[in-house]
This record gives sequence, structure tokens and C-alpha cells, in this order.
Amino acid sequence: MKIIEQLNWRYAAKAMNGKKIPQEQMDRILEAARLAPSSNGLQPFEIIVISSPELKEKILPAAFNQPQITGCSHLLVFAAWDQYTPERINEFIAHTAAERGGDPERLERQRQSLLSKFAGMDKDQGYAHAARQAYLSLGVTVVAAAAEGIDGTPMEGFDPEQLDALLGLKQKGLRSAVIMALGYRDKEKDWLVNLKKVRKHKAQFITELN
Amino acid sequence: MKIIEQLNWRYAAKAMNGKKIPQEQMDRILEAARLAPSSNGLQPFEIIVISSPELKEKILPAAFNQPQITGCSHLLVFAAWDQYTPERINEFIAHTAAERGGDPERLERQRQSLLSKFAGMDKDQGYAHAARQAYLSLGVTVVAAAAEGIDGTPMEGFDPEQLDALLGLKQKGLRSAVIMALGYRDKEKDWLVNLKKVRKHKAQFITELN
Repeated sequence: MKIIEQLNWRYAAKAMNGKKIPQEQMDRILEAARLAPSSNGLQPFEIIVISSPELKEKILPAAFNQPQITGCSHLLVFAAWDQYTPERINEFIAHTAAERGGDPERLERQRQSLLSKFAGMDKDQGYAHAARQAYLSLGVTVVAAAAEGIDGTPMEGFDPEQLDALLGLKQKGLRSAVIMALGYRDKEKDWLVNLKKVRKHKAQFITELN
Repeated sequence: MKIIEQLNWRYAAKAMNGKKIPQEQMDRILEAARLAPSSNGLQPFEIIVISSPELKEKILPAAFNQPQITGCSHLLVFAAWDQYTPERINEFIAHTAAERGGDPERLERQRQSLLSKFAGMDKDQGYAHAARQAYLSLGVTVVAAAAEGIDGTPMEGFDPEQLDALLGLKQKGLRSAVIMALGYRDKEKDWLVNLKKVRKHKAQFITELN
């Protein structure tokens, strides 16, 4: 099966060679990210796609000078909603109605149900929930990049407040949850490239209750 | 590109027909979940795979009687570490050393770095971090299932404490973060099967900074 090969091929490249990813491959990777499922379909996050060399240079210190930031082709910032609000839920319902149509009474019941589930969460709970949905999409994106033969390195090593400030995310009600460098491994410079992939053995990872 | 088609084919089936997934397909889906990347490679979660009809019946009320629980072939429970502990980090380093070898001094530096990053987190922070890694693997699993033509429904609608108690997770230092029903859509009974997939438009989801 192809996905297994692709997941074995991929690894979190620690050095990238600066080569540019063709636009049509980026489009497919981002389309996969967009199609990822999310809780109640809310998609409570956005993706900022950074290819500007100047902006990557500015981000570098906020990511502890990790070389993938400037060596990658495109840097993805998964930016999650800072909280669930009635406005965001109303907008989601309006969008659903416009896209799919459907019984207005059913949509109103859905809206009330979402409001009671999410709009009552405090900010921390809401952001935590939204960030998990962003990670789900990140998982889909990891596979999509590998399927294109593009290296993708998920990264948590950055200062979210600095990054949010650089990208003006706070004003948009967003917080950077996780980032991903997309590009091409630099085989000469990457200490990780030839090391064996380590994962838990199946027996330590899976429990079957038949 | 195949992944886009597969992601468009899939949806969160709300009714499943009880048909059993062949073991070799389950093996590939779970292998993809195992190969998913995680923060520092720690894989701070496990997957419980439930095919027992009796156990699914017991879980049903803890998941608000959603019919996928009993209609699915296999129910996956992504169970995250309840906290990071020095024991878990030491075990990870020992496993890495056994699998990959490497300079003992480097491994010791890695161990110290992980201890300072993770073992100091409080329980809530640690679990929240571990749960995000489980969601990343869930995203990989979503694609792997779709690639097999298997329906997969990620579900947050369950009572984690009830489920943890049923599966004895607390004693193992685990907490159920998210579950996924794997099986086959029941086209006759599923109200969602013919509805259009709704996602944010690209312009609302992606911001490009070139």
C-alpha cells in the first residue's frame, strides 16, 4: 500500500535546500488540508502560507533559529481560533445553508446545538479544542506532502506569542498552534536523514479487544 | 492526485452496516497510525482497537447511543498519556537507543532536554499536548482508511470518564482523547450520505504571504 511507503519515506527533515515547490503541488497539499474533517465541520483554524524570504528571516528567531524556517520552500502556520463565538458559529451555519441548502428548522436546531456546545466554552477550552482540529488537519497534510514527494516537518519549537505578533494573528482572533516546513531535504547537511525511523513496536502501541 | 479524490469520497458516516473489515486492511490502517509523526517522536498515546460486539454494546451509552458504535467493524480509541513522567521519557530513550543505537552522550543530552521540556509540565498541560499528537495520528488514519475504501468517522461525542472506566485506561495512565469508527456506510440509513460536503472556501481558509 502506497501510504505506508510514503510514511516510511518521510521524516522530519532538519535541513532543507531552499528549492521551490511547484505551485500545483502546493495547491494539492493545501486542498488536502482544507478537506480534512473537523469537529462538527467547524474548521476552527486557518492556514497562513509563507514563501516570502524576508518574512521567513523575521520568523527565524521566533523559531529558535531552526534552519528549516529559511531552508523550506513554504512555511505553513496552522492558526486556530482563539475562542468559539456566536458570530463564528452563525457564520458557519450561514455558509452551510448557502452551500448545502436544507431545512431551515433543522439548521436552526444545529445552530442552537453548536451554540450550547461551543459558545459556552471558556477561552482556554475553546482554543484547546480548536488546536486539536488543526492537528488533525496537520496529519492529513503530512500524508499529502509525502504523497507528492515533498518533505514536511511539523514543528512545535517556536514562540507562539512572537509568531502571532509578527503575523498579526491576534487581531484576527487566531493563535498559531503548530507550524510545518515544506520543502526538500538537504541530504548533505541533515544529521537525521540517514538515521533509522524509531516508532513504538506494534505491541506497545496497539491493544486489540476482540 | 489520489488523496484529493479519497478525501472527497470520505465523509463522517453516521450509520454503518456492520460488515467486517478484512484484517490485512486493518493492519495497514493501524500501521499508518503508528508511523505518524509526533512531537520529539514520543508517541504519547496508544490505540485500543475494539471489535468485540459485547464491548461495543457496553460503550454505546457512553457515546450517547450513536449507531456507529455498534454498526462499525472496528472502533479505535486514541488514548493519550495522562501526563509526561520521567519513567516514560527514560523508556523512550532506552527504546531509541535499542532501535537506532547512537552516541550515549548525545542520547543523554536528548534525555535531559526532554525531561526539562516535558516532565515539568503539569498534568493538564501534559495531557493536552499528548492529545494533540493523537489528533495528528488521527489525521493520518483518516487518509489511510479512505485510501482503503473504508469509512472512518472521527467522534468526540462520548463521555471520556465513562469510556476510560470501561476500558481500564486510568490504571494504565491513559485518557481517551478521541475515537474513530471504522466500517462501511449504510447508504439506506445515513441521512448524511447524499449531502454535499461543506468546507470553507479556499479564500477563507488560506492566506498566502509571498
